[in-house]
Amino acid sequence: MKKKINVAVVGATGLVGRKILQVLEERNFPIESIKLYASHKSAGNTLRFQEKTHVVKDIEASDFSDIDIALFSAGNFVSEKYVPKAAGQGCIVIDNGSFWRMNPEVPLIVPEVNPEMIIGNHGIIANPNCSTIQLVVALKPIADNFGLKRVVVSTYQAISGAGQVGVSQLMSEINGELPESRISSNQLAFNTVFHTIKDNIGFSIEELKMIDETRKILALPKLPLAVTCVRIPVLNGHAESVNIETEKPFTIFELKEVLGKSLGIELVDDPINEVYPTPLMVENKDEVFIGRIRKDESIENGAYLWVVSDNLRKGAATNAVQIAEKVLESMVNG
Amino acid sequence: MKKKINVAVVGATGLVGRKILQVLEERNFPIESIKLYASHKSAGNTLRFQEKTHVVKDIEASDFSDIDIALFSAGNFVSEKYVPKAAGQGCIVIDNGSFWRMNPEVPLIVPEVNPEMIIGNHGIIANPNCSTIQLVVALKPIADNFGLKRVVVSTYQAISGAGQVGVSQLMSEINGELPESRISSNQLAFNTVFHTIKDNIGFSIEELKMIDETRKILALPKLPLAVTCVRIPVLNGHAESVNIETEKPFTIFELKEVLGKSLGIELVDDPINEVYPTPLMVENKDEVFIGRIRKDESIENGAYLWVVSDNLRKGAATNAVQIAEKVLESMVNG
Repeated sequence: MKKKINVAVVGATGLVGRKILQVLEERNFPIESIKLYASHKSAGNTLRFQEKTHVVKDIEASDFSDIDIALFSAGNFVSEKYVPKAAGQGCIVIDNGSFWRMNPEVPLIVPEVNPEMIIGNHGIIANPNCSTIQLVVALKPIADNFGLKRVVVSTYQAISGAGQVGVSQLMSEINGELPESRISSNQLAFNTVFHTIKDNIGFSIEELKMIDETRKILALPKLPLAVTCVRIPVLNGHAESVNIETEKPFTIFELKEVLGKSLGIELVDDPINEVYPTPLMVENKDEVFIGRIRKDESIENGAYLWVVSDNLRKGAATNAVQIAEKVLESMVNG
Repeated sequence: MKKKINVAVVGATGLVGRKILQVLEERNFPIESIKLYASHKSAGNTLRFQEKTHVVKDIEASDFSDIDIALFSAGNFVSEKYVPKAAGQGCIVIDNGSFWRMNPEVPLIVPEVNPEMIIGNHGIIANPNCSTIQLVVALKPIADNFGLKRVVVSTYQAISGAGQVGVSQLMSEINGELPESRISSNQLAFNTVFHTIKDNIGFSIEELKMIDETRKILALPKLPLAVTCVRIPVLNGHAESVNIETEKPFTIFELKEVLGKSLGIELVDDPINEVYPTPLMVENKDEVFIGRIRKDESIENGAYLWVVSDNLRKGAATNAVQIAEKVLESMVNG
């Protein structure tokens, strides 16, 4: 029975990688040793962790044989190649990329929603897409209590979801400078843009992820789900306008009660006094914030929700570390 | 039969008032004379119109007896008091405020949608809310061809919809300065906020306007319509994520054909090449731009639309001037 474990963070220099280190520290994750990896380009950089300076190593020279848990957030190319290597060397990988998420052998976990699926892992556990995580945290108690019939979502997504390049493009444009590199040929500042479009049915990859991953996590493979994903000029914090339709009738009082007592949800719903979840409010928080809860009279058993969460924390780093905590529990108990 | 007419613009110094003057000039509206009015506070200012300088007069000293058409955009307090005065003095008032819109005696007009209702006016014609205008231009051909069963809308609204105070708050915050006055106690920059909430059912006034006005303009008083209105840090140009459900089946090809040949609509729908409507793209345009047209498989006969328009132009000034042009036609023909 191990009390302290050896951890690797792959993609440590990225926005999410750095946030993973911050969350591991904050939550006092019991770390015996840590290895930091990044791409060849970022290797050699140093990062502070638990009051020590660590040199980031090249993923190409990685060795996971002494690692218990590896947290990957380094893009799909790295995940495809190095996640099987790490799992093959006997550690449990928690991968933040999309490459493994829809693999039927890989559990896709949000600890408040489907922690029981962790047990079925074969060394790889996938961390869902940011916009999916906050949605399923909100939907799970509704599905359990009233049954989900249909969900319509439009997102208001922060630019940090596109990584440092996106943030730099936005800030350059706001400061009237020419961006050095860009995530969209369209201007981000004072504008709205869409994520990369997948194919000729016109959906973005982000929209397809939200549909597929939500169904997998909720174990509702045919859930009718309509999704439009939009990037807006916000630095951090994704918001989602959600219209739900349920099987069973409910009152707004009941809906608020069900959501309010659910793990990981915080209700902030006093809009008359301008108190409601906003991207700025949720920054550096780990909960999913829900407000604007209203009856939707345009359909039987309908309601509106406004769901906001920090996409780098609950949408990525915190959820990954929470999965690691669950894995650790099973190691300690196993 | 008059060829040129006498026009008054009330609220001439506001964002919409100035835009009305610009649109009147651009469209060569046949003006014999123009009178500009504003609140006591703004009276005495001068504005350029058709290469002449005009002194803005105090609305309290207004006289409409020699005016043919008066265009009001001065807030509900002024509309309530001075619109009946102007109509009583025999001119046709086109009012951009919300005070008269839901009055059953007052036609609420979008020229592409319900121009035939102008004839029933008693001297007052209402110009709809900005977010409503672009929505009904998109919905009308769908209602006519396929029948509307339900509409779910989430808006992405520009700060210019809140007037100069809103724009100043946003720009002050972006520049790191303390705003002199504000439209929300929440920060606008890098954030999302809601419009003023109406009452204890939790809807904003903007959301209720969109529901009520859309039903009135489309003459579908019971149309099931779910609306969430959100302000985002965009200066100008409202976007709307719209999910429609129709009575009759349709293909995406048919839907695009119906929308593409409709008055006032421009399709911009090549998202694979990052070509889709954006707030920046529609600036200073008069059309309603539609893209991201996709089949919504989460419901029978469903589709997605992304509807964007310049809220100060088609959403306010242009629509008012287009109504004035229709009124003029009836004067010339009458």
